[in-house]
Amino acid sequence: MQASSGRPAVVLLSGGLDSTTVLAIALKEGYRCHAMSFRYGQRHVIELDRARVLAHSLGAASHIVVDIDLRQFGGSALTADMPVPKHRSVDEIGPGVPSTYVPARNTIFLSFALARAETLGATDIFIGVNALDYSGYPDCRPDFIAAFERMANLGTKAGIEGAQQLRIHTPLITMTKADIVRRGLSLGVDFGSTTSCYDPDPITGVPCRQCDSCLLRAKGFSEAGVVDPLDASRS
Amino acid sequence: MQASSGRPAVVLLSGGLDSTTVLAIALKEGYRCHAMSFRYGQRHVIELDRARVLAHSLGAASHIVVDIDLRQFGGSALTADMPVPKHRSVDEIGPGVPSTYVPARNTIFLSFALARAETLGATDIFIGVNALDYSGYPDCRPDFIAAFERMANLGTKAGIEGAQQLRIHTPLITMTKADIVRRGLSLGVDFGSTTSCYDPDPITGVPCRQCDSCLLRAKGFSEAGVVDPLDASRS
Repeated sequence: MQASSGRPAVVLLSGGLDSTTVLAIALKEGYRCHAMSFRYGQRHVIELDRARVLAHSLGAASHIVVDIDLRQFGGSALTADMPVPKHRSVDEIGPGVPSTYVPARNTIFLSFALARAETLGATDIFIGVNALDYSGYPDCRPDFIAAFERMANLGTKAGIEGAQQLRIHTPLITMTKADIVRRGLSLGVDFGSTTSCYDPDPITGVPCRQCDSCLLRAKGFSEAGVVDPLDASRS
Repeated sequence: MQASSGRPAVVLLSGGLDSTTVLAIALKEGYRCHAMSFRYGQRHVIELDRARVLAHSLGAASHIVVDIDLRQFGGSALTADMPVPKHRSVDEIGPGVPSTYVPARNTIFLSFALARAETLGATDIFIGVNALDYSGYPDCRPDFIAAFERMANLGTKAGIEGAQQLRIHTPLITMTKADIVRRGLSLGVDFGSTTSCYDPDPITGVPCRQCDSCLLRAKGFSEAGVVDPLDASRS
């Protein structure tokens, strides 16, 4: 696909269902999208290969992978030697902040997106946070995003020079997982190339189908009445 | 010096005059200080050696250096192949945001400090920003810090679980450079071990004495009526 010639935007892209749909939305809105992924010590590092393929196939203007070592801090089942919680169904996912929460991860990701936006002369940042069918992470909530946007405008040149204001776009924030599946499909997203699992097979990338992320994905496809291509290709 | 056994705090430490004084202040206040520096592609990377020595000699409980590559983004005289502006005196420093501003740097540094604080169970973060004798960076202003603190409380477990609130401490924010010099000296800071220059000799670390940071430092010592030990040892 051809990269758009529109206004530049930075899009956080993990290679998952949500962020890939966000990239498709931003492209559809005419932005020239600079995708950004992070090698942060995540156990599901296989997502970076997917992000690279998806950024290219959807038509991002560029894609970079930023190296940061969140294993230095640990404190999460995704970045330390702790088991990823598994359940038989989505109803078993308890309340509270789960152990897969990575301390300050979205704050860090958005901070780097801010640096990239400022150097690109972009005032638009897209992130696929979702506050309905999500894992209960504090840094996915609308209040957090609004506070980040405010802080970002005060902490950059825009804040001093009165230039155009930075905006954090969260097109999925009030959508259900089923809504996201439908929206992605309508925009031609190949969900078979995405990966959502927190604990996939490290070689084949086959999802565990029992972590919160797998279960929320399955719920989304089920409620949308669509077969997940990752399941369709299951042997 | 002995590490304090008090409440844990994260202290951003660049090895400069300001952040070293902040570390001394936090220790004096009884915090068990976890110092944190960044190898971010800065031309004055020599500051990291100073930070390590100072963290140890002042009695920090720990010191880590986080590797992040802000040269990927560039956009600053400190992280790209652009000259560092030089002046004959502090009065020549013009208004506006100078080319040494590194896009979103303090946002990124504070975000990592937030991750570290959350994993340490700390609710106090110290940063040596200063809004009087400073280089005009947007991310040194009180409004930015207040907005970051608010965002941090919404984006971490504290925000969901109603635990103790995170606080960003800026003990220097309304001090002049001369005040900071006096305060540091009263706390026994060895300013001869600090480095402030944006463009020091890469081998010897000798400061250029013409960049904004050198000129502001000289103004501070001059107004405090004290000889800078870096000048006293000048051959």
